[in-house]
Amino acid sequence: MTKSRAEAFSDGVFAVAATLLVFSLQVPNVNSNLGAALVNEWPSYAAYAISFLTIVVIWVNHHAVMDSLERLDRRLLFLNGLLLLTIAAIPFPTAVVAKYMQAGHDQTTAAVAYGLTMTAMSLAFTVMNLYSRRFRRAMAPLDWLGLLTGAFLWPLGTLLALVNFSLGLAVYAFIVVFYIVLPILRESAALAAARSEH
Amino acid sequence: MTKSRAEAFSDGVFAVAATLLVFSLQVPNVNSNLGAALVNEWPSYAAYAISFLTIVVIWVNHHAVMDSLERLDRRLLFLNGLLLLTIAAIPFPTAVVAKYMQAGHDQTTAAVAYGLTMTAMSLAFTVMNLYSRRFRRAMAPLDWLGLLTGAFLWPLGTLLALVNFSLGLAVYAFIVVFYIVLPILRESAALAAARSEH
Amino acid sequence: MTKSRAEAFSDGVFAVAATLLVFSLQVPNVNSNLGAALVNEWPSYAAYAISFLTIVVIWVNHHAVMDSLERLDRRLLFLNGLLLLTIAAIPFPTAVVAKYMQAGHDQTTAAVAYGLTMTAMSLAFTVMNLYSRRFRRAMAPLDWLGLLTGAFLWPLGTLLALVNFSLGLAVYAFIVVFYIVLPILRESAALAAARSEH
Amino acid sequence: MTKSRAEAFSDGVFAVAATLLVFSLQVPNVNSNLGAALVNEWPSYAAYAISFLTIVVIWVNHHAVMDSLERLDRRLLFLNGLLLLTIAAIPFPTAVVAKYMQAGHDQTTAAVAYGLTMTAMSLAFTVMNLYSRRFRRAMAPLDWLGLLTGAFLWPLGTLLALVNFSLGLAVYAFIVVFYIVLPILRESAALAAARSEH
Repeated sequence: MTKSRAEAFSDGVFAVAATLLVFSLQVPNVNSNLGAALVNEWPSYAAYAISFLTIVVIWVNHHAVMDSLERLDRRLLFLNGLLLLTIAAIPFPTAVVAKYMQAGHDQTTAAVAYGLTMTAMSLAFTVMNLYSRRFRRAMAPLDWLGLLTGAFLWPLGTLLALVNFSLGLAVYAFIVVFYIVLPILRESAALAAARSEH
Repeated sequence: MTKSRAEAFSDGVFAVAATLLVFSLQVPNVNSNLGAALVNEWPSYAAYAISFLTIVVIWVNHHAVMDSLERLDRRLLFLNGLLLLTIAAIPFPTAVVAKYMQAGHDQTTAAVAYGLTMTAMSLAFTVMNLYSRRFRRAMAPLDWLGLLTGAFLWPLGTLLALVNFSLGLAVYAFIVVFYIVLPILRESAALAAARSEH
Repeated sequence: MTKSRAEAFSDGVFAVAATLLVFSLQVPNVNSNLGAALVNEWPSYAAYAISFLTIVVIWVNHHAVMDSLERLDRRLLFLNGLLLLTIAAIPFPTAVVAKYMQAGHDQTTAAVAYGLTMTAMSLAFTVMNLYSRRFRRAMAPLDWLGLLTGAFLWPLGTLLALVNFSLGLAVYAFIVVFYIVLPILRESAALAAARSEH
Repeated sequence: MTKSRAEAFSDGVFAVAATLLVFSLQVPNVNSNLGAALVNEWPSYAAYAISFLTIVVIWVNHHAVMDSLERLDRRLLFLNGLLLLTIAAIPFPTAVVAKYMQAGHDQTTAAVAYGLTMTAMSLAFTVMNLYSRRFRRAMAPLDWLGLLTGAFLWPLGTLLALVNFSLGLAVYAFIVVFYIVLPILRESAALAAARSEH
């Protein structure tokens, strides 16, 4: 099994899942006041953006893992399949959150369902990431910070959503921003260090 | 006709079909109790997982077949098109099974429709697999076990679903697990044999 | 503009359009008798198969055209975009035909709408094909049979659908089979000729 | 992060978003007169064509930007993700415009929502384009015309839609045609200049 075709299939699932998120944006019923309906749909836009950027973040990390591998075995292929199963499911809890934030009831259940899906996804990614270490070209030291945040941030957000759904959703948004900003800061620091050495 | 572009098109259909399965997960009606509705939807989650992993399994096997070929002809291209036609159809019986397991009637019909689609798919794969042997780089001995299970397991499950839909669905789940576990065991055995030779 | 990325984008549109055809298969309403409803839906299955195989056929021909080119210019890129616009639209008339064959009225309108979309598609392909000749590696003689059938078969089918919708649909099915069988026969003939020369 | 996999993911989102536009074409209700319903849906066809060709245009320009880069950093990857987020959203305002042009009310709101999405998209592209200049192989002079039109045409169209929705939609159509015709003219001029030098 060549790596490149596993990457092509994975890229396909990532790209399609991200693009299908658009269906969590509901075209308002023809009898509604369009302006008001579009404004009231703002939770849908927030859910769309958080899910889309989450998929982009996991896609970047997935690429980094695949890129470091010399080869794959069947177990890793199956673990990758489990990860993709959770990625492809993301449009579902996104649509649930979008709908129930507007419905004004059961918001806690919706936020927890969202967090549980993301927890399953981050768990699948952590397991795949740890298992894949045996096929790495260079045995880099374990990125404990990345692994811990990957394994604990989403369950933590889910627990907080159980207490207060607004707090949970705020944590979900924070997780995405965190995963976008942290690598940018690390990259800048590495670049600065490389420059000061010269 | 280069192999690589046939693979790219096939990978695309596999990845999109797998990701479209998410539409068999119904966002509960806004008047329902969300928690209860999401729990009652468990047959949808099972159907989603079985179909997703089935597509992953066929994709892996499809890749192995394509990888072994030196070239393609027009007939093989058309047989591949027939296989993709059945792959792309999988979200339909998956949604039917998901809906009718919850509806509480016509479950046998739904389970049989699902099995018939999968039978058509495994038949298309078997025909393509056998025909493609003439273009193989190395003439490997026929994998009788793989061919027999590929050609007989899904029809068998469909027949059992006709008798008892729960039994049929259990067989469908077993087929997926079987196709995931068997290659892992074989790979481990081959690895152990290679090690003991040294 | 490199050819390979134009091919990747085109392959994506072909694969997604083909896979989206599954939405022309309607999951029967939960109050219906599932068995009867699935059987009555047979025009949907026929429409699905004809459209899927038509997209496969055009994809194969599109690949042959792209493969023969040394380079692209902006005009060709735009003509390719117009072709993809018609390809991506195919799920729409497919769903219309599937729905109205079952509705039992306006079948002629549905069949004509289907034929007009396919006519637009074959026209876009013919224009792109002719324009691309200036960028071909080797100036092959014009494939008059292919061009004529490409430009005239779909309009002919559409006209016949206007007279009698069943006849039109039969012609649509014939066109697909024709485009699958003809290249297989030609390939076999070329192979036989090559063999007799040795 | 290799450029090629970022391109593959981007191509996937572009291709899927373009193909999902087909869902802004509504299959008429089974009780309607199909011919009249299909004719009355003409604003849907116009919206479909404008959005499809807009995505093709941005895809071509996106490719030109990516092609000119030596490498990527994390910031650029994130800016690319923001651009893709706006691309993947395009089917939503397209469906809104298609529905409300036919509904006969709130057309201004629909046209403005469409223009705002396209403005966000062109803004994301402009930012990504400017930021990416530091990674270019050859430091080409800034394409002021392209940047200005990219940053100003869509907001201008949106403002005009606020005054008169028909005028706004006409400007949207003009923008697409402009972006298709301008590069063709430039290419022809460059070719003519190259010829006269010899």
